[in-house]
Parts: sequence; structure tokens; C-alpha cells
Amino acid sequence: MRIADRIANLGTETAFEVSAEAGAFASEGNRVFPFHLGDINLPTPSTVVDGAQKAIADGKTGYCPNAGIPQLREAVARDVALSHRTDYAAENVVIQPGGKPTIGKFILTMMNPGDEVLYPNPGYPIYESQIEFNGGVAVPYGYVEGAENFAIDFDSIEEGITDRTSLLILNDLQNPMGAECSTEEHERLAELVLEHDLYVLADEAYFDMRYSGRSTSFVEQPGMAERTVLLYTFSKKFAMTGWRLGASVGPKEIVDVIAKINVNDESCSNHFIQYGALAGLQGDQREVQAILDTLEARRDATAAGLNAIEGINTFVPNATFYLFPNVTELMEHKGMDDYEDFRRAALHATGVSFTSRVHFGRELEDEPNRYIRLAYSGIGVSDIEEGLALLKTWAEN
Amino acid sequence: MRIADRIANLGTETAFEVSAEAGAFASEGNRVFPFHLGDINLPTPSTVVDGAQKAIADGKTGYCPNAGIPQLREAVARDVALSHRTDYAAENVVIQPGGKPTIGKFILTMMNPGDEVLYPNPGYPIYESQIEFNGGVAVPYGYVEGAENFAIDFDSIEEGITDRTSLLILNDLQNPMGAECSTEEHERLAELVLEHDLYVLADEAYFDMRYSGRSTSFVEQPGMAERTVLLYTFSKKFAMTGWRLGASVGPKEIVDVIAKINVNDESCSNHFIQYGALAGLQGDQREVQAILDTLEARRDATAAGLNAIEGINTFVPNATFYLFPNVTELMEHKGMDDYEDFRRAALHATGVSFTSRVHFGRELEDEPNRYIRLAYSGIGVSDIEEGLALLKTWAEN
Repeated sequence: MRIADRIANLGTETAFEVSAEAGAFASEGNRVFPFHLGDINLPTPSTVVDGAQKAIADGKTGYCPNAGIPQLREAVARDVALSHRTDYAAENVVIQPGGKPTIGKFILTMMNPGDEVLYPNPGYPIYESQIEFNGGVAVPYGYVEGAENFAIDFDSIEEGITDRTSLLILNDLQNPMGAECSTEEHERLAELVLEHDLYVLADEAYFDMRYSGRSTSFVEQPGMAERTVLLYTFSKKFAMTGWRLGASVGPKEIVDVIAKINVNDESCSNHFIQYGALAGLQGDQREVQAILDTLEARRDATAAGLNAIEGINTFVPNATFYLFPNVTELMEHKGMDDYEDFRRAALHATGVSFTSRVHFGRELEDEPNRYIRLAYSGIGVSDIEEGLALLKTWAEN
Repeated sequence: MRIADRIANLGTETAFEVSAEAGAFASEGNRVFPFHLGDINLPTPSTVVDGAQKAIADGKTGYCPNAGIPQLREAVARDVALSHRTDYAAENVVIQPGGKPTIGKFILTMMNPGDEVLYPNPGYPIYESQIEFNGGVAVPYGYVEGAENFAIDFDSIEEGITDRTSLLILNDLQNPMGAECSTEEHERLAELVLEHDLYVLADEAYFDMRYSGRSTSFVEQPGMAERTVLLYTFSKKFAMTGWRLGASVGPKEIVDVIAKINVNDESCSNHFIQYGALAGLQGDQREVQAILDTLEARRDATAAGLNAIEGINTFVPNATFYLFPNVTELMEHKGMDDYEDFRRAALHATGVSFTSRVHFGRELEDEPNRYIRLAYSGIGVSDIEEGLALLKTWAEN
């Protein structure tokens, strides 16, 4: 078989292997507490379901425009303009079959082979994969742990910038860390972007997954909306991960190219689901709020359960549905140096299944601390408490 | 704005501009007879709709496996194995968000930059675009008009093959021509494939859109299933164009790579729609047959209306929902040499809207005949008759 050379540079999400291992362990009759999934085990709001079903009945089952139905482009523009305090119109929005497609399409549109691209590490592994698959050089930047947040390691960003750096990928609010940029971080990033003439992908998949306060966007910085494409998704806020609907939001010139890539890659996103999402945006928001309330209770239970364990420490992020506890002391206590050994030992001893730092980009040199990631979007409060109590017993022995 | 160089090689479907012009003409209060659309104005069978709605109610709204739900992979494999008289199992199937994604993913998986790829012209314009966008050389082959079919021009294929030819794209049954390969053509293609060590994309989007007889696939030729990826789609047979669901079917080693591209590009296809498609494949087929019966009546009306016009001649294909009449004499009679002038004149004089040869790949040198394409999937019989009567009056004056 003669597979093309470029496939050697194609990465994946190794977290799927964790799911597979947890599934195998469960199928042997074991109880599993699933903290590894970034999926949501809550129903999609009835506004969305009813809107989509009405659209099927109305015959919205044929092709729609490559960039999406005009009403949804308009509604997303209005939603983002309001929450981002920035001007956006329908022409700045191109609908996608999910949040993820914006990553690859942004890179295809903006990156030449040989360009260097700054990306967060730990971070969503698809950045690294899409940069390298399309012939770019993936240059990681890190984060530094503080008392109540992770902060961008600007030393690593500045060290990473060269004459060939053309793009910056920012994931704020961040998966896997739950990190959130301060205004000062946004300002400092904007200065670097202007100084080095960069364009930006701002992955805001978790922008609306927020339990208190207001999310602020990098594009609120002067001049940044003109240089930034936002990854927007319906997956999280409306518990629609399996529906596959999102959008790329940015300068018209870039958005027009991305729409042309849509023509080539998949024609358009599902037609009637766009009406469902429209109904979700325009309808009663009580079910959306209920999803957030449920997740907030899970966050609190997960954080409390983790912080009750000797050798584990996590802050409590205001957003995302992830916790990224520091387990350096616990791994030392257990005499374990390898992340995957540690993960498997915990799974087999307690049924608690989680991912770790190694599932979110290649490990950098000399990382001082060890981290695991727990997602609380797919597990209820009583299971959280039960699982973390078992983890505590195992950890402290 | 600094757009990546590769975007200069990205093509599009110019047929969308025809839709836009027809829409503009209609919005001025004119009657339009839409023969330009390759879309279907018939409802999706209730088996599919009910299956999808049940899956939503059952909570199939989260992520599913990147390659698709196992039951649907299995059902597609069984469907294709039966209709193609070839062994396929679930591991040979990767679900896609539509038929089209298989084109780009096959090319990414199998073509190196600089490789030459044989593709049909006239043909679906995305072949040309995806080959060139990904750094290949698109080498066209043509068709020769016969009394009851278009036949592959093997002279143009053999002239096109060089040491750098690595892939062949075959679209049988063919859009825009309605052409269908004979067993002899399949055999001759298979010989060339073996002789020159080619891999094949067989775009079979219209395999089941057949009014009499049995569709035969290129993979029925010995050794060809091992070298061929099939483009399979639910769009046509189940009138699901706007639902976006299809599959790539082929050797496991290729299908596994395509599934890994899924991980990077869009995670997975819509979860609950896969259950809808499964119900469609397994359920009562009467509504599916009714779609074919409706289209057959439209085909007959369109062919009769066209052949009644002096200077237009079309054969009646057994498959697809397109006619590709020869209009050489009519364009001469009207004193027109330019396809787009001719198309616009007909639209503005009669409201009859169609695409032409120029919307299906770059014109080759010295084409002896002129052709337009009429799709009858989006227009009912009485409108077909009324529109073509108007076209006749205009044509013969």
C-alpha cells in the first residue's frame, strides 16, 4: 500500500485510547468513574431539539449555502458582537460542522509551509497535529501555575518567536488547564502580535462555559479583531457535541476563504440543525442555564474531592469543565515517574479514569510539575464523590 | 491581509453562481424553471426521520466514534458488499459528513505533491480543485458521445498516463453526463490500473439512483477492491442532501488513515443522524422506491421535452438525475459561441435555468460539441413540461 508521505505528520488525540482502556476495564465488570471524557452527558435543550425537528418538517433537508444559512450567520454575529464588545456582522461568520473544523481551515488559510506557529502546550493536541500535517513548525509555549490560575509563560512565547513566526494559537479559556487570561495578558499578547505581525486563532470553545463573572475575549484588544479568527461552537453551551455545529468568526477576507474551503471539503453543514441552533440562541435560556448550574455543582464536588487528597492540589477555575490538578507530590509518594503507569494504576485500583498532561501535546523539557486532567462534564455529583473517595484511599496508602 | 499561497490553487463550484443568478432573476418577479440544481426537492423517507428523532430522544447527542457508529459501518459494509458482489466488512467503512469529504480525504491520503491524477472532464469540479489544492497535477480524460451513452475516451487516458501518474478518479455513474461504464470499459480500466500501479477513487454517489437494470461497480473487477476507495453517500438515495452523511469504503489500511483525518478535521459525523441512516437502510424501502419513481417520470418528461426541440439531442440515461444534451446545432442556430451567453439568454428569455459544460471542469482543446446539463431532481413534471415548451419556442425562433 502506498500512503502519501504527509500522513506521517498526522497526529491524533491520544485521549481516545484512554476512553478505549476505560471501556475495556468496564467491560470486565468493573465500575468506572469517567473523568476522561470531554463530552457532556446532559440532554440538548428542548429549544434546539424542537427547532431542528420543525425545520425537518418544513423541508430544510436539502443543501444550504456553503457558509451557512443567513439567519444563523446573523444570529452568531450578534451573539459574539454582544459578548465580545466588538463589531461583527453576518459576513464575518462561516458556519462549520463543529468547533474543530475551524482549526484546520484557519491553518490552511493562513499558514505557509515552513511558517512557525506558536501554540499552547499543554493544549488541545489537534493544534500540533494540524500545524505539522500542513507543513508548518509547531512551536510550543507553556503556562505557569499560580494560586488561582495558570498564567501564560511569556518567556516561552518570546523565546519561541523568530522571523518565521506567522501565527499564534490562543485557547482562552483553556483546555486542559481551565486557565483564563487576565486583561494584562491579553494586552501583552496584543503587543507581541502587532510587533511581530502575527495572525491569531482564538479557540473560544469554552467562552460561554462560565460559572461566575464575565468572559473577556482577546479581540477586545484594539486592532486584534482584524487579525483574529474565533473558534465558536454550539457543542458545549447547548450540550450539542454530537450534533456537530460551530462557526469561524473573523475578518471577511479570511472568512470568505474558509467558506471556499467548505465548498471543497463538505459543501455545507447540516441544514436543519442550523435552524435548531438558531432557535437555541433566540429562545428561552433556562435550560442553558440549568446545564451550567449542573456543571458548577460537579466542578465544586470534583475540586473538593481532589483537594481532600494528600498530594493533590487544584485551584477552582471559573470556566470550562476541566480541572488540572498538580499531582507531583502524589506521584512521588506512589513512587511513580511515568504518567501512563500512574493513570493505569489509578484506573485499575479505583476505577477512576482520567487523562494526563501527556495527552495534551508533547512534554517539554524540564517540566517541574506533574498534572492530570479531570473532566466533570460526563459524570454526576454522587459518582464524583464516590470515585474521588476511592481515589483518596488509594492515593494515601 | 496575508493569505497562504496554497489558497491560489483552491477551486470552487461555479454552478453556485448559476443558482445565484437564477435567484436574482426570480427575485425580480420572473418565473424560473430550476434545472441547475443537483439537489432534491422531495422529503426524506420517514424511516430516516423517525430513526434520527428516536436517537435524539435516546440521548445520542454526544460524540460518537471518529469512524462512525459500529452498527452503521456494519450496515453500509453489508449494503455495499451485496450490491457490489465484493467482500466488505465494518472495518472497510469510515462514516463521513456527506459524500464530498471522501474526495479530499482520499487525495490527502494517497497523493503526494507532484503526483499526476487522472480525472474525468467534464466532471465534478471538486476533483480538479482538490488535486491542485493539495499540490498534485490534474490530468483530464474525456468522454465520447455515442447513441445511447457517453463512453470513456481511452485515447485521452492513455495519452495522459506518465511515470508520475499515481491515481485515477472514476465517476461511474457520471455527473454531469449520466454516462455509465460497460463491463468492457471496467475491464480496460482495471488493466491500465494494474499496468501502471494506480490507486482509484470510485465516486459512486449515483450508484443507487437507477431506474432499470443493475449498477455494476469497478470494484467487481479482480484485484480492484484492494486498490479502490468508494465514495458512498446517503444524500441521493434517501433525499438527504442537507443532512450531510456518507462514507468512504475501501481497504482497511486506507480507511484507517481517513479515520485519523476525521479525528483532525471534524471529530466525527453527527451521531443521531447515523441512527437515522441505519433505520433507512434496514427499514421499509417503499419511500425510497417512490423517490426513484418520481425521478424517473421527471427524467422521461425532461428527455422528451428536450428531444422535441430542434437542434437539441439527448440520450436517456438509466441512472443519475442529469441529462447532458448536445446543443451544438442550437448554439449555431442562435449564433452563439459562448456558453455563458447562451445560458443567460435562455434564462432571461424563458426562465429555464441550467448549467453547461463549463461548470464541470476547464474546457479542453478542440471540443467538437457543445453540451448543457439539466438536473431534474429539483423540479416537478408539470414545471418541466411548461419550461421546456418555452425553451422550444425560444430555441426554434
